[in-house]
Amino acid sequence: MRPGPYERHRELLQSVVRAIAAGECRRPFTEATGQDAADAGMRSTRTAGKVFRSLLGRPFDLGQPGGLGLVRPEASPYGVGPAVAYPRCDPTALVAAAERAAAGWRAAGPYERAGLAVEILRRLNTRSHELALAAHHTTGQSLRTAFRAAGPHAQDRALEAVARAFAESERLPADLHWESAERGGLPRALRGTCVLVPRGVSLLVGCPDFPLWNGYPGLFASLVTGNPVVVAPHPRSVLPLAITVRVARQVLAQAGHSPDLVTLAVAEPERHVQRQLATHPAVRIVDFTGSARFADWLEQHARQAAVFADRIGLNTMVVDSTDDYRGLVRALALSSCRCNGTVRTTPQNVLVPERGLRTDEGHKTLRDLGADLGDAVDRLLGHPARAARVLGAVTTDEVRGALTEAARYGPVLHASGPVTHPDHPDADLRSPLLVRLRASDERVYTREWPGPVTFLVGTDSTSHSLALLRRTVARHGALYASVHSTDPLVLAAAGTAALDAGVHLVENLDDLPADPSSALAELPGGGAHFVTGRFRVVRSRRHAPPTSAVPAPDRLETGVALIDV
Amino acid sequence: MRPGPYERHRELLQSVVRAIAAGECRRPFTEATGQDAADAGMRSTRTAGKVFRSLLGRPFDLGQPGGLGLVRPEASPYGVGPAVAYPRCDPTALVAAAERAAAGWRAAGPYERAGLAVEILRRLNTRSHELALAAHHTTGQSLRTAFRAAGPHAQDRALEAVARAFAESERLPADLHWESAERGGLPRALRGTCVLVPRGVSLLVGCPDFPLWNGYPGLFASLVTGNPVVVAPHPRSVLPLAITVRVARQVLAQAGHSPDLVTLAVAEPERHVQRQLATHPAVRIVDFTGSARFADWLEQHARQAAVFADRIGLNTMVVDSTDDYRGLVRALALSSCRCNGTVRTTPQNVLVPERGLRTDEGHKTLRDLGADLGDAVDRLLGHPARAARVLGAVTTDEVRGALTEAARYGPVLHASGPVTHPDHPDADLRSPLLVRLRASDERVYTREWPGPVTFLVGTDSTSHSLALLRRTVARHGALYASVHSTDPLVLAAAGTAALDAGVHLVENLDDLPADPSSALAELPGGGAHFVTGRFRVVRSRRHAPPTSAVPAPDRLETGVALIDV
Repeated sequence: MRPGPYERHRELLQSVVRAIAAGECRRPFTEATGQDAADAGMRSTRTAGKVFRSLLGRPFDLGQPGGLGLVRPEASPYGVGPAVAYPRCDPTALVAAAERAAAGWRAAGPYERAGLAVEILRRLNTRSHELALAAHHTTGQSLRTAFRAAGPHAQDRALEAVARAFAESERLPADLHWESAERGGLPRALRGTCVLVPRGVSLLVGCPDFPLWNGYPGLFASLVTGNPVVVAPHPRSVLPLAITVRVARQVLAQAGHSPDLVTLAVAEPERHVQRQLATHPAVRIVDFTGSARFADWLEQHARQAAVFADRIGLNTMVVDSTDDYRGLVRALALSSCRCNGTVRTTPQNVLVPERGLRTDEGHKTLRDLGADLGDAVDRLLGHPARAARVLGAVTTDEVRGALTEAARYGPVLHASGPVTHPDHPDADLRSPLLVRLRASDERVYTREWPGPVTFLVGTDSTSHSLALLRRTVARHGALYASVHSTDPLVLAAAGTAALDAGVHLVENLDDLPADPSSALAELPGGGAHFVTGRFRVVRSRRHAPPTSAVPAPDRLETGVALIDV
Repeated sequence: MRPGPYERHRELLQSVVRAIAAGECRRPFTEATGQDAADAGMRSTRTAGKVFRSLLGRPFDLGQPGGLGLVRPEASPYGVGPAVAYPRCDPTALVAAAERAAAGWRAAGPYERAGLAVEILRRLNTRSHELALAAHHTTGQSLRTAFRAAGPHAQDRALEAVARAFAESERLPADLHWESAERGGLPRALRGTCVLVPRGVSLLVGCPDFPLWNGYPGLFASLVTGNPVVVAPHPRSVLPLAITVRVARQVLAQAGHSPDLVTLAVAEPERHVQRQLATHPAVRIVDFTGSARFADWLEQHARQAAVFADRIGLNTMVVDSTDDYRGLVRALALSSCRCNGTVRTTPQNVLVPERGLRTDEGHKTLRDLGADLGDAVDRLLGHPARAARVLGAVTTDEVRGALTEAARYGPVLHASGPVTHPDHPDADLRSPLLVRLRASDERVYTREWPGPVTFLVGTDSTSHSLALLRRTVARHGALYASVHSTDPLVLAAAGTAALDAGVHLVENLDDLPADPSSALAELPGGGAHFVTGRFRVVRSRRHAPPTSAVPAPDRLETGVALIDV
């Protein structure tokens, strides 16, 4: 007999479950070396290029119900085309198909579901280069960033969601058993079962800039806890999720399940298919990572669903002192270049005392830091090939507008300007904008700014910086906070401030956890709740034959007498 | 050194944690026999009576901030008075005090918090008789029901919440550690911590009818996960929660914590203090068990908070066949008598095929069952002392109106009438109303009816009954469903229907899980989510000294070459 999907992937799955429980970090997809990747059947980048080109200008077949024609919402910011033609399906038909598929998926149980989820990820892993090209030509990210964010890193993040969801299922006791001597005389043995009941149809609202890295945790956590998923990509970034959905449907169908457990809902932007689905009465879970504005809209309107909205918020860095000034400047310059879209992974607000900081190169004023940062950005982007590896292409006027507007609020330390891509002259590459603000400019730096906008905010002291961090992040959220200091007291105070604000903290690391290229990334929401909110536990109970014939007293009657006043 | 609260109660706590993981049922407070209870210092019922009487007509001192005078919102349905005078405190002052106390409570950590929670429960246990009298004279429940619902059963339910919350905390890895070889050449060892961060101030919206049994799970789950709790009882049922709050404040203060971690917010009903608190921006968790109407209001308006609203819904019993007809009739008669208020624990809808059922006493028609039920109720209530032990006193016109209205919708199988309490002639005791309906009367039996209202609904068949269960309970919720059948196929079908509807099921048991006198009770929501939704996990990370000097390749660069199309 061929082993089932769980048996095939048990070792991998259990090793990730054990690592999570032990506080270790297992990233099997990222850690696979070249030969491992080859063994896993990962296509070469040349083959992937051929496959990618073969998709362009053609109908993207998914075999979904409710077809209403084709839609081509994407345009490559690098000018590569023609656009892929996706089936536009009636959202109601997709939800109905998901509902029909749900009972069989619930009955499949957590082992089968987790095994198939890993199977889907392994197949996606072999297509990492194709997914990278799809992300590159929709999000505008550099190919290098796209590979990390849409390839092994996204797969590892998904695997962590699979392992956490599976661990929650495994934790439920298989059988319930106890004795009750509540009424009558004889102790009565009771038996019961404990079943994880999925919440219902799950909706993934795709984000335009990191569709897989942000999308996979919710998609896979829902699937493993038994919920079918309708994937509604952002109209600008369909292809990475479309490939994902096609792979998932193939794996599910080959295992004898309904492929409609995972479907793609894409339409012209003016149809607002994401909003339509988010308020569908049968949609019971919604996942979204992105702007506070749309997160608020979802929580306001998707009342029938559990909404897992991960707001970007205000990624904040507190700079107090450093023993590696050049490293700090280089890392900050690099991360300020890395954001071309609306989902910000770079620090927006860098809080530094006005009087400057102690470093291994002596005292540096805030003005020094600004000038050094600007120089470091220029050095980094000075070589066109390197610039093209780091910068992404801007895809929206929203980012262009933000770059113009933000420059008005304070002294510009580094102006954002056009950068030419050596291979794609039409791509709109922009260098990052660095603006110096005062602590009192709070209404500016507490807005979420899209694109490569970083504010250097001068504060009275590091204590003042931490107070600002605590207040602004507690209020507006953030994916992470970071602190640079050589002083253990400052690090301790930063730890407390981060706990008060409820935000992850990195200390003296240039590897930022919200960066998809980082090995440190967290699942959204930072808690077991991200998984446990997708199901409930339903128990059933019945008599079992009595195991003892000794009568037990009705204790309330015999042990205790009740007297009213 | 005196052992800390965790050490003192570790054995008890860990035994409950182990039992939950193993699918067993530990009810240490309920299972304590007379001598155990005496050893635990449980006051005699006579002493409790004296203590209870000493509270009447006096100010109930709590030492809370924001005092604005006294308020006496209760009236004993048994005519015992005068009413207790509670401090009315400014709700904003209570929330502010909770916020001030929060940081110290978070820092105390899960061990200290769980230990103190058990300490509070052990002290409450010694006052079980006093709490029973307090519940009896506010909710109107019979003293026997009040003892079970406000005494050991409520304490055991709380202990389960404590153990589950503690287990979630224990599950977090204490330290994070891994190696990263992402950039540069040397592998970098990283270390980190993983801290449970409470969500914020928690609000318990007390229900009028089972204030402790329904209130303790949220109160204790919030406390153990580090959230301070403001307790806002229903103005009709303050005393049981007021005693609880006073005990909690004493235990906390004696352990050196701020007593304002648990406060009581009570006011005249027209002040709507529950609504005011539920929408306070600093209130981040709201617990409520009761009507779908108020649950909807909370979810609509308490947008800043995680709302754990447990709707009563439509408790439903499917009767197919039985090998203990008398037992079935007796249990149903007893449970139909047990509801005097708005929080329904008895089955509202009993679905039976019109053509009747197979029993150990031969075939019984629906008419037979109705007549036998009516007789059983009359027998049960025939003796005044027994009637007073079973029935509670009606406390609201809402229940009186429901009894009048429901009788209009179908043939009355047992009319609700006044019953005289032998000791309290003014108490408004009512016998239960049994009404026969048709399956087509769905708009009647899909409403939540307060008080002792039970509908016998005639269906086409047991399959039809199960379809009705599936549809009405999926839509309106229920605390449980039950099925009586001797046919394994029917039991299996009922199991599937219950999973489809997402409801707990009891098979052939007369002990109903939503009955506070039952040993089977579940925590609200039936899932880990009830605990995990009260906190998030925040991680911090930093470098550790490198453990190896072997350079690791930058795998993306060396193992994989990226080529654009």
